[in-house]
Amino acid sequence: MKLATLRTEHPDGRLVVVSRDLSRMADAAAIAPHLRAAIEAWDTAAPALQALYAELNAGRHGGAQAFDSLLCAAPLPRAPQWCDGSAFLNHGRLMEKAFNIEPAPDAQSVPLMYQGASDDFLGPHADVPLPSEADGIDFEGEFGVIVGPVPMAVAPAEALAAVRLLVQINDWSLRTLGPREMRSGFGFLQAKPSSSFAPIALTPDELGPAWRDGRVHLRLQVQWNGAHFGAPHGGEMDFGFGELIAHAARTRRLSAGTVIGSGTVSNIDRAAGSACIAERRVLEILDHGAPRTAFMRFGDSVQMQAQCEGSGETPFGRIAQRVVQARP
Amino acid sequence: MKLATLRTEHPDGRLVVVSRDLSRMADAAAIAPHLRAAIEAWDTAAPALQALYAELNAGRHGGAQAFDSLLCAAPLPRAPQWCDGSAFLNHGRLMEKAFNIEPAPDAQSVPLMYQGASDDFLGPHADVPLPSEADGIDFEGEFGVIVGPVPMAVAPAEALAAVRLLVQINDWSLRTLGPREMRSGFGFLQAKPSSSFAPIALTPDELGPAWRDGRVHLRLQVQWNGAHFGAPHGGEMDFGFGELIAHAARTRRLSAGTVIGSGTVSNIDRAAGSACIAERRVLEILDHGAPRTAFMRFGDSVQMQAQCEGSGETPFGRIAQRVVQARP
Repeated sequence: MKLATLRTEHPDGRLVVVSRDLSRMADAAAIAPHLRAAIEAWDTAAPALQALYAELNAGRHGGAQAFDSLLCAAPLPRAPQWCDGSAFLNHGRLMEKAFNIEPAPDAQSVPLMYQGASDDFLGPHADVPLPSEADGIDFEGEFGVIVGPVPMAVAPAEALAAVRLLVQINDWSLRTLGPREMRSGFGFLQAKPSSSFAPIALTPDELGPAWRDGRVHLRLQVQWNGAHFGAPHGGEMDFGFGELIAHAARTRRLSAGTVIGSGTVSNIDRAAGSACIAERRVLEILDHGAPRTAFMRFGDSVQMQAQCEGSGETPFGRIAQRVVQARP
Repeated sequence: MKLATLRTEHPDGRLVVVSRDLSRMADAAAIAPHLRAAIEAWDTAAPALQALYAELNAGRHGGAQAFDSLLCAAPLPRAPQWCDGSAFLNHGRLMEKAFNIEPAPDAQSVPLMYQGASDDFLGPHADVPLPSEADGIDFEGEFGVIVGPVPMAVAPAEALAAVRLLVQINDWSLRTLGPREMRSGFGFLQAKPSSSFAPIALTPDELGPAWRDGRVHLRLQVQWNGAHFGAPHGGEMDFGFGELIAHAARTRRLSAGTVIGSGTVSNIDRAAGSACIAERRVLEILDHGAPRTAFMRFGDSVQMQAQCEGSGETPFGRIAQRVVQARP
C-alpha cells in the first residue's frame, strides 16, 4: 500500500492512504492519526490501512478525494531516529581518489553511517531555507526504509524483516562545512540540515521484483533547475538495507519509525550521471584537475523521482523543491 | 521547579512535579500528560506546573505522594534531538596528548559536537544492557539543557534564553568502537549507545547562582562500584550552553525538547578526578606509558550526582545504575 502525510497544524500531520496510481486519497485518521502512530501500532494498523487501500483502488471508497502532493509533509515529519549509510561504495571511492584520502581498510565489510537529525523532516515541495550559499549547498538523492522495533545486535536477515515502508529522500548537504566536521572525528552536524522526503511511503510489495536483496532496483531520476542531472540505479548498493539496519542496531535497539538511508545513489557507469553535485565535481577534478560545476544558488530547484522502467511510473511520487535564503 | 517522569506503559511516561527537597511529588498529567507535551506548550504549561510546585513545597497539595526515583524514567524518555558537545577542552587536550592527535586549529573557537540518538533514553536506575565487554564500556558524566524552539542561525545570547530545563546525563560510550568511527569522518554511532539521565529536570532558577554564564557551577560526584572516582566542576566549561545551542542551530531550527549536552565534565586540576574512565586511562598513559585501569565489566555500577557545596544537596537527584549483558 501507499501512504502519505498531509500538512496540518499538528507537527505529525494527518495520515492518508493513496491509490496505487497516486490519483486519489482516503483519510486514514480513524485508523491512526498520523504515520508515527500507525508505525507504533503496525500489527493492528497495517491490516486496516491495507483494507482501506484495497477499497480505494477498487473505486469503492465513498470519501475518496483527489491526491495532491503539494499538500504533503514528509511521510514522517518527525521520526524517532535517522541513520544514513553510505552504501554505494562507488561514491566514496570517487571522493577518495579526487581528494587523496586513504580508503578505510574495512570499507568493504563495515558500512559507513552517520547519525542525523530526525525532528524536522521537510515535505516534497517545501522550500528549503538555508543560511548561506557559501556553505556549498548540495542535494543527495537516495532511498530509505522505515522500520518497526529492532532489537539490539540483530542479524541482517532478521533486520530486513523489520522493514515496514520504503521512502525516497533528498539528504541536503552543505559541502563547505563537511570536511571540518569529518576531520574532527565527531562527524556531520552543521553539514547536514533537514532532509526532504518524496510524498509516498510504500510497503515493499508495491515495488514487486524491484524490491529484492534489501535494495530498491529502480533508477533515481534527478533534475537540477529542470535539466537532467543523473539517473543512477538503486540496485548497485554494496550493502543492502538489512546490513545497514543491523549496523545501526549493533549497540542499541531501534524504535519503531527509525529511518535508515542508503546514502547517495551512485553507479560505476558514468553514463548514469550522479545524484549529487559533489560527485559530479569529483569527476571533473579527476578529468580536468578542477571542478567546473558550482554548488546551488538560492532560487535553484531540484527534482527527484524513482522511475519504473517500461511503465514510467514513479511509485514514491516526486520531490520538487527550491532552495531559499533562511530569513534571519 | 523540579520535574520528573514516571515509567508507565506509554513510552513518554507520566509527568510529575517534585518538591524542592525531592521528598514528595504531585501528578501533573492534568497539565500535560508527559514532559514532551509540556515542553511543546511551555508558555501555558510552565505557569500551571509552577503553581503546582509552589503548592507542593508549601505542603498544601492534597494528592502529594512520596517521591521515589526508582520509579523514574529519563525526564524525556524520547526527545526530538540529542546533540552532545565536548565543551571541556581539557578532556580533548588530554586525549590529543596521549594519542598524539593534532589538535584542530579552531578548537578554541568552534565547539566539537556530535549528533546522538534520542529515541530511547534510559532512566536513572535502569540497567544498561550492552552487547560486549570487549567494546570498552565507559561512563561519561555531564550536564545538559532541554530547549524550547530555537530558530536557525540564532546568536548565543538569544540561544541561552531558549533553555527551559537543566539535566544531568551519563553519556555511555564504547571506547573500542570510537576510534574507527572517528577515523571514518562519519562520527560516533555504535560507540554511543543510549544515554542515561538523572531523575530531575529543573528550571535554571532552582540552581540560584550555580547557574550562570550558561554553565552549571556544581561539582559532579562520580563513584564507580561505590568508590570515589572524580568530582570535577561544571563551571570550567570552555563553551557555555548558549554557544553550544547556537552551534547546533547554525544550519537548522531545533524543535522544542532538543537536548544539548556539555560533554564529559573535565578539570585541569587533576585532584578533581575524572568523570569517565577514558580520561583516567589517558592520564595513566601520560604518567606511566600505558593505561592501568580497565573499562567496565558486566555487573559494575556507576553513581553520579551534582552536589551543592555547603548544603550537600543533589538538585538533579542521582544516577545509580549497573551495566548488564544484553540478552540475545
